[in-house]
Amino acid sequence: MQRVEKELERLIAEIDYEEVSRLFKMLSGGKRLRAKLILKIAGEHKDAPLLGAVVELIHAASLLHDDVIDEAMTRRGVASVNATDGSKTAVMLGDILYSKAFTELVAFDRDVARTIAASVTALSKGEMMDVKMAENFNTDEALYLDMLYLKTATLIEAAAKASALLVGKDAQKHALYGRNLGLSFQIIDDILDITATEEALGKPAMNDFVEGKCTLPYIYLYEELNSSDKERLLAAHAKNISKEETTWIQEKMQEYKTVEKSFELAQKLSNEAQNTMSEDIELVMILDTMIKRSF
Amino acid sequence: MQRVEKELERLIAEIDYEEVSRLFKMLSGGKRLRAKLILKIAGEHKDAPLLGAVVELIHAASLLHDDVIDEAMTRRGVASVNATDGSKTAVMLGDILYSKAFTELVAFDRDVARTIAASVTALSKGEMMDVKMAENFNTDEALYLDMLYLKTATLIEAAAKASALLVGKDAQKHALYGRNLGLSFQIIDDILDITATEEALGKPAMNDFVEGKCTLPYIYLYEELNSSDKERLLAAHAKNISKEETTWIQEKMQEYKTVEKSFELAQKLSNEAQNTMSEDIELVMILDTMIKRSF
Repeated sequence: MQRVEKELERLIAEIDYEEVSRLFKMLSGGKRLRAKLILKIAGEHKDAPLLGAVVELIHAASLLHDDVIDEAMTRRGVASVNATDGSKTAVMLGDILYSKAFTELVAFDRDVARTIAASVTALSKGEMMDVKMAENFNTDEALYLDMLYLKTATLIEAAAKASALLVGKDAQKHALYGRNLGLSFQIIDDILDITATEEALGKPAMNDFVEGKCTLPYIYLYEELNSSDKERLLAAHAKNISKEETTWIQEKMQEYKTVEKSFELAQKLSNEAQNTMSEDIELVMILDTMIKRSF
Repeated sequence: MQRVEKELERLIAEIDYEEVSRLFKMLSGGKRLRAKLILKIAGEHKDAPLLGAVVELIHAASLLHDDVIDEAMTRRGVASVNATDGSKTAVMLGDILYSKAFTELVAFDRDVARTIAASVTALSKGEMMDVKMAENFNTDEALYLDMLYLKTATLIEAAAKASALLVGKDAQKHALYGRNLGLSFQIIDDILDITATEEALGKPAMNDFVEGKCTLPYIYLYEELNSSDKERLLAAHAKNISKEETTWIQEKMQEYKTVEKSFELAQKLSNEAQNTMSEDIELVMILDTMIKRSF
């Protein structure tokens, strides 16, 4: 991973603008999940660290714009760029990181470059769908999973597929692995928003629902409720809800086991990915760790 | 140009999201200067219309984000996307158009793709410099021209260079032509902000200065003024100024011929480009028309 960090440093230095270097240093790099995945799949290829850095730049740019769009004041426990330097700066920095990443991508084989580039269109489209869907109470599971795929899974899918292409491994299998990893990762994230403590999350519990986002446990709950309870749930959507309503929703979720049902889907997707990649113990382990995380 | 519009339609349709198609239709396409330039240079190449569409997508994306950053409510006389659909939508739409353009770019030869992609990093960096510079009264002509080059000229330079590469024409000559076309275009734009009527501009005269932007005529004026007048000019910077101050600035500009001085630089850059391209009468004519425009 040091090789990836070094490439990131080099690319940021090449932008040759002090303001960008300063702002980039302020970003929490996060877990660098995508770059780690690329190194696991294609670590022996000389360009794998560069590909990892490119994908992490894209991921950082998308988070910068996400935080502007969601008006998020923190990111991974530190103040977001839109909080410290304003949303305009976050938009501009995101544009610079995106375009620098695309410029570097050009050096790769066409199929590698196209895989990554196309996933960025998908993730931007997913972000727009996410915002549109939060305007109403979405009860459509398939539509929700489509959005989740675009917004969260496509870049991980592309990272896995592109690194497989780089070293001549099975691109389709790796794409499926990355897709399911991304989907189950996000479903677990959505579950933790409901089940984890405020301290562990670093934000209020059930924040998604307050922001209008109906994740799987809410969609499944809505399906189960009788019509007057459906109305009660609808009335609580997309606003600051009372402790009483929070408790009621959590009790109903327990009654109908909607968190468990969501977890089962994450587990199913994860198993599918593990079966596809059964010969690669490291990739299997990543999924194990991910599915068992508690925050 | 119909071929470019057709390619644009096809690319937008490929994004396959109704909301994007609706929003893209609302954008005024503008003069499509960059695509026209590409067709003039490389019109006989089968991929020239696609390259033109890619560059116009990039230009549209950059304007969407510019309007968010400048809080501009209109663009080319029509309401901006951030005015009608909010700044978040404008950010997301810009990201989608940028990434779609980059995805298509991958199909081109590496040097063509790299030329265009790198210019987007430059223009995003130029936008950030523009915003930073507007925080104070910038009196540094060289710094101003650097920013102008990055923000406005690099994409035109890249369009000219990339299309020359596409058909095996002299890339360096065409790059210089595009650079100077872009620079002189923007200097004329800055002049018109001072000299054109409110009706012709569709916005208040001297709007740049009100927004904090010190264009060449202001930089040259500052150089000429005595210290008490310097202070008076500084005091008027970046705020809504009275009719009296507007008149005073315009009189001082006439006295010191700072608009003429700016125009001379535009003319010089334009002449240099014309001399480089003297054998290509069409490219020479573009500059003639541009430099003589009155709005």
